[in-house]
Amino acid sequence: MIDALFGTGLQRPLTGWLKDLVGQLNNRANHVLAIDLPSGLFADSNKDNDPTAIVQADRTFTLELPKRALLMPDQGRFAGEWEVVPIGLDRSFIASLEPWAWVLEEVDLAPMLPKRRRTAHKGDFGHAWLLAGGPGKMGAALLAAKAALRSGCGLLSVHVPAGQQAVMHGTVPEAMVSPDPGDRLSELPKFTKVSAIGLGPGIGAEAETGRLLKLLIQQAPAPLVLDADALNILAQNKTWLAYLPAGTVLTPHPVEFDRMIGKASNSEERLQLARGLAMKQKVVVVLKGAYTAICAPDGRIFFNGTGNPGLAKGGSGDALTGILTSLRAQGMDALSTALVGVYAHGRAGDLAAEALGMDGMLPSDLIDRLPQVWKAMRGVPSSDHLLG
Amino acid sequence: MIDALFGTGLQRPLTGWLKDLVGQLNNRANHVLAIDLPSGLFADSNKDNDPTAIVQADRTFTLELPKRALLMPDQGRFAGEWEVVPIGLDRSFIASLEPWAWVLEEVDLAPMLPKRRRTAHKGDFGHAWLLAGGPGKMGAALLAAKAALRSGCGLLSVHVPAGQQAVMHGTVPEAMVSPDPGDRLSELPKFTKVSAIGLGPGIGAEAETGRLLKLLIQQAPAPLVLDADALNILAQNKTWLAYLPAGTVLTPHPVEFDRMIGKASNSEERLQLARGLAMKQKVVVVLKGAYTAICAPDGRIFFNGTGNPGLAKGGSGDALTGILTSLRAQGMDALSTALVGVYAHGRAGDLAAEALGMDGMLPSDLIDRLPQVWKAMRGVPSSDHLLG
Amino acid sequence: MIDALFGTGLQRPLTGWLKDLVGQLNNRANHVLAIDLPSGLFADSNKDNDPTAIVQADRTFTLELPKRALLMPDQGRFAGEWEVVPIGLDRSFIASLEPWAWVLEEVDLAPMLPKRRRTAHKGDFGHAWLLAGGPGKMGAALLAAKAALRSGCGLLSVHVPAGQQAVMHGTVPEAMVSPDPGDRLSELPKFTKVSAIGLGPGIGAEAETGRLLKLLIQQAPAPLVLDADALNILAQNKTWLAYLPAGTVLTPHPVEFDRMIGKASNSEERLQLARGLAMKQKVVVVLKGAYTAICAPDGRIFFNGTGNPGLAKGGSGDALTGILTSLRAQGMDALSTALVGVYAHGRAGDLAAEALGMDGMLPSDLIDRLPQVWKAMRGVPSSDHLLG
Amino acid sequence: MIDALFGTGLQRPLTGWLKDLVGQLNNRANHVLAIDLPSGLFADSNKDNDPTAIVQADRTFTLELPKRALLMPDQGRFAGEWEVVPIGLDRSFIASLEPWAWVLEEVDLAPMLPKRRRTAHKGDFGHAWLLAGGPGKMGAALLAAKAALRSGCGLLSVHVPAGQQAVMHGTVPEAMVSPDPGDRLSELPKFTKVSAIGLGPGIGAEAETGRLLKLLIQQAPAPLVLDADALNILAQNKTWLAYLPAGTVLTPHPVEFDRMIGKASNSEERLQLARGLAMKQKVVVVLKGAYTAICAPDGRIFFNGTGNPGLAKGGSGDALTGILTSLRAQGMDALSTALVGVYAHGRAGDLAAEALGMDGMLPSDLIDRLPQVWKAMRGVPSSDHLLG
Repeated sequence: MIDALFGTGLQRPLTGWLKDLVGQLNNRANHVLAIDLPSGLFADSNKDNDPTAIVQADRTFTLELPKRALLMPDQGRFAGEWEVVPIGLDRSFIASLEPWAWVLEEVDLAPMLPKRRRTAHKGDFGHAWLLAGGPGKMGAALLAAKAALRSGCGLLSVHVPAGQQAVMHGTVPEAMVSPDPGDRLSELPKFTKVSAIGLGPGIGAEAETGRLLKLLIQQAPAPLVLDADALNILAQNKTWLAYLPAGTVLTPHPVEFDRMIGKASNSEERLQLARGLAMKQKVVVVLKGAYTAICAPDGRIFFNGTGNPGLAKGGSGDALTGILTSLRAQGMDALSTALVGVYAHGRAGDLAAEALGMDGMLPSDLIDRLPQVWKAMRGVPSSDHLLG
Repeated sequence: MIDALFGTGLQRPLTGWLKDLVGQLNNRANHVLAIDLPSGLFADSNKDNDPTAIVQADRTFTLELPKRALLMPDQGRFAGEWEVVPIGLDRSFIASLEPWAWVLEEVDLAPMLPKRRRTAHKGDFGHAWLLAGGPGKMGAALLAAKAALRSGCGLLSVHVPAGQQAVMHGTVPEAMVSPDPGDRLSELPKFTKVSAIGLGPGIGAEAETGRLLKLLIQQAPAPLVLDADALNILAQNKTWLAYLPAGTVLTPHPVEFDRMIGKASNSEERLQLARGLAMKQKVVVVLKGAYTAICAPDGRIFFNGTGNPGLAKGGSGDALTGILTSLRAQGMDALSTALVGVYAHGRAGDLAAEALGMDGMLPSDLIDRLPQVWKAMRGVPSSDHLLG
Repeated sequence: MIDALFGTGLQRPLTGWLKDLVGQLNNRANHVLAIDLPSGLFADSNKDNDPTAIVQADRTFTLELPKRALLMPDQGRFAGEWEVVPIGLDRSFIASLEPWAWVLEEVDLAPMLPKRRRTAHKGDFGHAWLLAGGPGKMGAALLAAKAALRSGCGLLSVHVPAGQQAVMHGTVPEAMVSPDPGDRLSELPKFTKVSAIGLGPGIGAEAETGRLLKLLIQQAPAPLVLDADALNILAQNKTWLAYLPAGTVLTPHPVEFDRMIGKASNSEERLQLARGLAMKQKVVVVLKGAYTAICAPDGRIFFNGTGNPGLAKGGSGDALTGILTSLRAQGMDALSTALVGVYAHGRAGDLAAEALGMDGMLPSDLIDRLPQVWKAMRGVPSSDHLLG
Repeated sequence: MIDALFGTGLQRPLTGWLKDLVGQLNNRANHVLAIDLPSGLFADSNKDNDPTAIVQADRTFTLELPKRALLMPDQGRFAGEWEVVPIGLDRSFIASLEPWAWVLEEVDLAPMLPKRRRTAHKGDFGHAWLLAGGPGKMGAALLAAKAALRSGCGLLSVHVPAGQQAVMHGTVPEAMVSPDPGDRLSELPKFTKVSAIGLGPGIGAEAETGRLLKLLIQQAPAPLVLDADALNILAQNKTWLAYLPAGTVLTPHPVEFDRMIGKASNSEERLQLARGLAMKQKVVVVLKGAYTAICAPDGRIFFNGTGNPGLAKGGSGDALTGILTSLRAQGMDALSTALVGVYAHGRAGDLAAEALGMDGMLPSDLIDRLPQVWKAMRGVPSSDHLLG
């Protein structure tokens, strides 16, 4: 893990001729490079900053460590594309500081994957259940199911609306299918040997599906991963949040998060609200975005650096739900599930972008590349600075 | 862009012994090469020419610039396969002339593609809607949908006849599906966050679908791309043409165009009619053919040089509709959409032909290669002579 | 084309100690090589030969030209794997003899493929219609449809039993589908712009389908390709054979042929019966087998040397029907269609066997390799000894 | 075949300070290597051993020959990953001993594959029938069908529950489909030209399917392969075991075996029970696991060394059933079918793991690689120590 430190430096907005200069700079077509941070951007929080007094860079070389502002979408946009440039700061000095967040590195995540012993059988890798799909949105269930199967679980069952078995079988023959009696999900399946449950992709937020979620929260026969419309249902029934089982993983994007918790005025506030939710309910909140933030029940925040805007397409989130449910079913704890799953999802997306470019790639391509990601992670030698 | 100039030279048909010589030449099995243009072919218009007095070449090396006649299917066929050979003419002289048309070059098109910033989310790339498919012709909807998804839109919804959801989900899981109540398209879907609408592939031209098109033209909640049977419906209701929203993209092949506007006696007349339609209605007319012509609302004409006869198969047009709707949904204007989309469609077809040959390639193969086309276009450095 | 000559040499069965020696040789596990022909095998006809007096070779190197016996399955089996070894015989002497058959060579077939001009459109490559599929045998229709599309036709429509549209669309989106009102094919479709019609794969031989075939023979709106159950229906209605339109292509395997024409006592007799049928009805008979024989209306016989026992699987014939219907739709005559189609089918099967081996390859793999076969054929320079 | 010998050496559990040392060793995080066997593990049987007195190794280099204990999952786990290291023992001495089991080697298996002669037709490779699939478990039937087709049979028919034809056709077009009248399998199909029958994947264990199995055992129109729920039905009707036709192949995993025969207290006892069943009923019992054991009717036991824990996923067993049914249909005897099929299944899984890693690979990937396995086996020169 790379520590993300509170930054030092500029704490007041630029004014006067300096601000004018920024304005002039931003109005030119020139390519703007910034060193460490764009002039005018504060390293930590910019909520009191003046956006018209910040240089809009095309590219930023930030020194030694990622700065907090770079990881907030509404602040980091001033930096354009950015990367960390080591300048030889004293690492022991850095290590002595209290980081406010960590940036995920593969070397730390690989050891969290479950062992695959020679004598293992399919029962050793758990039985993942996905509750997914709805009218016009069965594709979401298919993507989640494929992603789950490509992430190592021993068995997968998918609970889908009536009449949707054939399309699941034909597309994902390794999945078992449980049909709901309704046109949309309305009743809990008869769970057998369930190790983890993922709910959300394509389900809609109708009343009968809401009742299903309520029952699921109450009975929770296995750890939960809640995404998409499951979160929208929570948004309509905010009191249910207090009953979420500890160890649930929630994966909202900013709009879903705001619906659920209340409108945040900026990324930073939203992040703190997510951290608060994680700590209060002992859940893991995966706040999706350009730099997805994972908020742990103990208050720690992790940022993920993999992924690219080629993932900004319908279906990417469904794939993530499948991955997380599959990892959770293999016995990984909620936090490890989120850290490893979010990293792998983005990494597979990066492989897809390398091969196909960001315009033409699809979530299906990401899923096809998950095996390569797990294979590469298994090959990573374990590091000496494991996640504490 | 390469300027396509009015040509000079021969303006009268060959007669007498010269014409006899042409006749003899055309009756031999020899391979015929032509320099600049086949003897007897006028550079600009051949409507007053005598086709029996023109040499049928197998291959033509045309000098410095493409001649107008080469770009008209019924005139260009005399040239066989042709290519431009630079001979060092003074470029500044050429630039001082008024071109009558342009030939698309990748270097000009690449900058028209929407930016993909690190902090982008799926909403930034629009929500494309396709209204497609009908009895026995659901394949057209599948091809259009795949092509749309492979062209970068953030979300795709497809409105299809009743009972056709499963085949769409199973084939194109990233697409959301909206079912029409009828066996053929009869009612507008409940559009949500719609950025562009493509209508036509496989829909048929029955009365209820005609009513749908009428409503769509009247309400036009987003820019339109009209193809195939949507054009045949317009042909049956020519008065509707006057109500087409400005910025609509129409993609007729010659037969569809003639049905819609009236029978043209030759390619040249058809092209001028298309240009007239584009200028009058402020729409973009994509006149499909060996050298597809794109007529802009301001009267300019652009010719596309990519593509090959391996595309002469059912389904190629459906793929184009998908591409155009996807680009339009990403916020590109109607003309840029047509220029980039037509070029990319042909380029992907050329890649398919290289890999698979022209006999065995299918529109599906073209679609599979779209990602490589976008990737290559993104890699093109921007040129200094952008489209004005 | 390689001429297949009537052979000379041995015309009487081995007897006495020579026959005993053959018996002993055949009882040993040794690997047996034969030069020219296995001892005891006659070059031309072995119907009066004594099978116990013929050496069973594992491999035969036959000299200069293929011998007739090698091409008959029930005689050629004595040769094991065989190949032609040139020994420098005088070609002009060979050319002066009357060959009794020809062996197909790619160099002769390539020029028969239709031209693909730059200005061509999909109408130039015809509209192929397949009437295929039945209860439990829709896969046959899918394979035929894929093979047709991979063989160059401009448009493909498939007439299938009621309720079978979705599986065709999902698997072969480029195909248009026409549904029959019945659970099995019972009514002719409303043909539109039909260029060739293939009937047979998976249709069954029930009465209502028989009526359909009868109507098809009577009306014949386009050239016919008849295979599989279409031939079994003919076998039940032998009087219909006299009404087959000239230029029909029939593709029986030996069992289907015997049902239709009467039980042949050996391969040679069957071949002569097939030749007789072709000449009498002016049709092309493709007698399928290890060395498929194509009998032309003018009495010529052509043998195909491509293909391998990896094709001995259900579905191979369906692929051939698709190929032939597609070629016929492109305007090729019946004989060229059969020669080129049979050759390409076997060649694609050989590519599949090279890549996947003969056990694991499937007809689907053959179909996937058709584009490479057409591409390679297009690249063959034309020969100076074209088919007369 | 490699002989697996009864081992010599340690026959009493470790005690005293040696046992203490083992305990200390096992509590450390060090990587433990063992030579020949982990200290404390007996070579043959460990049922009287003290598991707390055996070193848990991470890796074992066993000398010259595999020891019996290594092949039992509950004993072999002490060895971790293991491999055989030759140390130059006298082979003639080894050959003089009576082995208690054999370990499969490709060189011995390849000659058992059926010949593919040039003149073969599809009838020569048999007609395999699979009876498979049930509510929510049609994927099992699809996987078995694909695996059967990729294993060389000439024809494949699949008997599936009502309404499941389309998904089979769309996914596996080479298969013919026979629909059962019921929602789950309840009636025997009308078998035509049946060469082998596989029953089990996804069928469930309801009463009507039980009746089907009973009829199948009684009538047995062809050799049987019984797997999965077919075994669970046998477990509910233990008296039927006595009526199993000789030459039936049974493929239980340990839990299925115990249900059918009675709870075994350890792997070794289970293996002896399986051997007993095979000898008594003259059937072949494939006891699936990390080292699958194949028990022959003559009492011999064979262990398979291919495969890896990436196969520990739902669907792997279905693929095996398809492979075995296909081989049996090609005329291989029951034992050869099991030896070759189990080996090839594991080998294809190893190829999948090499390409995709063990986490992300799926049974579908194994099936895709079967052709390569058969191809490689065909290329193996025959050995001089064929299975007696």
